[in-house]
Amino acid sequence: MTTVPLWTDAQAEADPRVKAVFDDIRATRRSDFVNNFWRALANQPAVLERTWASLKEVMVAPGALDPLTRELVYIAVSVANGCSYCVHSHTAAARAKGMSEAQHADLLSVIAMASQTNALATALQVPVDPVFAVG
Amino acid sequence: MTTVPLWTDAQAEADPRVKAVFDDIRATRRSDFVNNFWRALANQPAVLERTWASLKEVMVAPGALDPLTRELVYIAVSVANGCSYCVHSHTAAARAKGMSEAQHADLLSVIAMASQTNALATALQVPVDPVFAVG
Amino acid sequence: MTTVPLWTDAQAEADPRVKAVFDDIRATRRSDFVNNFWRALANQPAVLERTWASLKEVMVAPGALDPLTRELVYIAVSVANGCSYCVHSHTAAARAKGMSEAQHADLLSVIAMASQTNALATALQVPVDPVFAVG
Amino acid sequence: MTTVPLWTDAQAEADPRVKAVFDDIRATRRSDFVNNFWRALANQPAVLERTWASLKEVMVAPGALDPLTRELVYIAVSVANGCSYCVHSHTAAARAKGMSEAQHADLLSVIAMASQTNALATALQVPVDPVFAVG
Amino acid sequence: MTTVPLWTDAQAEADPRVKAVFDDIRATRRSDFVNNFWRALANQPAVLERTWASLKEVMVAPGALDPLTRELVYIAVSVANGCSYCVHSHTAAARAKGMSEAQHADLLSVIAMASQTNALATALQVPVDPVFAVG
Amino acid sequence: MTTVPLWTDAQAEADPRVKAVFDDIRATRRSDFVNNFWRALANQPAVLERTWASLKEVMVAPGALDPLTRELVYIAVSVANGCSYCVHSHTAAARAKGMSEAQHADLLSVIAMASQTNALATALQVPVDPVFAVG
Repeated sequence: MTTVPLWTDAQAEADPRVKAVFDDIRATRRSDFVNNFWRALANQPAVLERTWASLKEVMVAPGALDPLTRELVYIAVSVANGCSYCVHSHTAAARAKGMSEAQHADLLSVIAMASQTNALATALQVPVDPVFAVG
Repeated sequence: MTTVPLWTDAQAEADPRVKAVFDDIRATRRSDFVNNFWRALANQPAVLERTWASLKEVMVAPGALDPLTRELVYIAVSVANGCSYCVHSHTAAARAKGMSEAQHADLLSVIAMASQTNALATALQVPVDPVFAVG
Repeated sequence: MTTVPLWTDAQAEADPRVKAVFDDIRATRRSDFVNNFWRALANQPAVLERTWASLKEVMVAPGALDPLTRELVYIAVSVANGCSYCVHSHTAAARAKGMSEAQHADLLSVIAMASQTNALATALQVPVDPVFAVG
Repeated sequence: MTTVPLWTDAQAEADPRVKAVFDDIRATRRSDFVNNFWRALANQPAVLERTWASLKEVMVAPGALDPLTRELVYIAVSVANGCSYCVHSHTAAARAKGMSEAQHADLLSVIAMASQTNALATALQVPVDPVFAVG
Repeated sequence: MTTVPLWTDAQAEADPRVKAVFDDIRATRRSDFVNNFWRALANQPAVLERTWASLKEVMVAPGALDPLTRELVYIAVSVANGCSYCVHSHTAAARAKGMSEAQHADLLSVIAMASQTNALATALQVPVDPVFAVG
Repeated sequence: MTTVPLWTDAQAEADPRVKAVFDDIRATRRSDFVNNFWRALANQPAVLERTWASLKEVMVAPGALDPLTRELVYIAVSVANGCSYCVHSHTAAARAKGMSEAQHADLLSVIAMASQTNALATALQVPVDPVFAVG
């Protein structure tokens, strides 16, 4: 159940702004598949356009981190935020970009470790060591 | 301000269980510096031992992800959980393991992007695409 | 699946405390519909009474913010907390109080923006500007 | 303590990309004051440019929600995410845009109410009422 | 730094609504000390009155859980929500109600364990076992 | 839908490491039932072994807090983290360890109260009273 309708391809074809984004998603990913996230965002063309433009710039354009590392970071944030859809879609994306089962296991170990020490540092209210300060 | 006292080196020397962990932290990291997190945990030797043993296994032992990638994931979780101490200590750790400023910028971009789409997916309650399901 | 049974109308009729709250919900909202949240809380009459009394005071009584603005704030909190039920029920409530699709799009944009800058401010550990301090 | 240096005006003047954003912040807000968030982001010009461009589009441009309502939503997200800097800066921004003390009290009441019912709905795992479903 | 002024005793004395709550806090706790949380809430008398009334009913009145257990639960929620003030004040309250250092260590172990398995269950998107369903 | 396959008993029997953990879960709990969490973790034997070993040490071994109190704390963390699976499994576990409906109601009241005051303390950015400081 969504809080907005999911747009079909026929609906997207009929709206020039939505069609342009869907076309670019398909061209960029070299796949005909457009996942539900974009079909939900289609109800709000300005949010759709801005979100896709940012995502393309951050996740697709070449940068200092390789595409798989970016997906691992994305999964970590999604898990910590408890976003079920995001965990599913980015775990699939990471696999598509080559994440091995051993890397997945390592990723989960780090996420579990961080979650645990985050809680301990918060419970103990540990003050930041002066040596860690930059600005 | 902490919720427990921070142990000095003199106090740690006087407690065999705490001394053993502090010695191992120093040997493992090849540095005399023991950061406040461990000095706070020293009040609770069993938690100190278990946490250090897990951290060493997860973050130090060789695995499918390289040490820098693990730190990037650690930072991502710490940011999403809002753990100030953890963000500071693991940003410092990532730099010590070679994170460049360009990689830091890329990391922040991905974290910001994921935070944004996490919120949108949750607000729209987007259903998981069947193609993402594994089990 | 819930962690407690959902009370039917027949069960609610048979318990004076639950019946009193359900009757007041119906009278206040001028609708016969009682949503699942209250049917779950009915297992714990004291929590049911206290929660409904607070909600009525905060969300229904006249105040400095109009009813629609309150619902938008409620949605924002629910998205940030990742509460699926709450996102659904308060998006429906906001629509019932007149939220337009353009307002919904604007709301999502602000929530996405805030989520993104929250993460950046936390990752950078930005110190509060002295000019923002009040007390 | 930050995880990156805070840029002074002199440093910003010397970097054309940062200078352009700082100039636009000052022109847009009709104030010489540039708060620490932007001074921290200045280390990463691409993130600075993208974040300011989005913020300007979402928070400054005319839209379906008035500027004060947007700030109230921003505060709500920041509180739920536990972002101390963001709570301070956007409470100040809301006051600058006319938030009265009565509106602040109302806002806090709604945030507290939502936090409470979010927790209850999650603890009870209440299923979404079919009537709330849209898509 | 707060987002509202902290009320002094002199200010509280001069406002009948605030004075009544502060008097009741002192009488209930048999202590002259009124902590900053209430001094901040004093700016918003209706929120102050409602919050204190609920807290007294939930935390002070006799119930099915003893006072110390309630404080342990309060700490656990505060840690998971990353509320620094709340972690400090309720750790102090738990100690005042008899929490031993061994109990504190045990509490932290459980909180750390739960944080870790929460993250793993979310990362794996484990479906609820049918046997756990009640309603 | 999971992000990894759920292991059947037949699969577990065929992998010595997984079999050893499943056997120990059954022996420790004196029940043939192995819940989905462990069936999902089975894909990653090292994570499975480490997680079960920690859980056994923290939740099963005698300690300063009784088993039911530990489960109540576990539920509180799981609710605050929004982990649906964890809320279900640990509410069931708490009932199996004797949680009465009155205790469940009390627990929910405390969780709701803490969530509410956490939000208020964060929104007001209340400074920690010096008297609460330990280290």
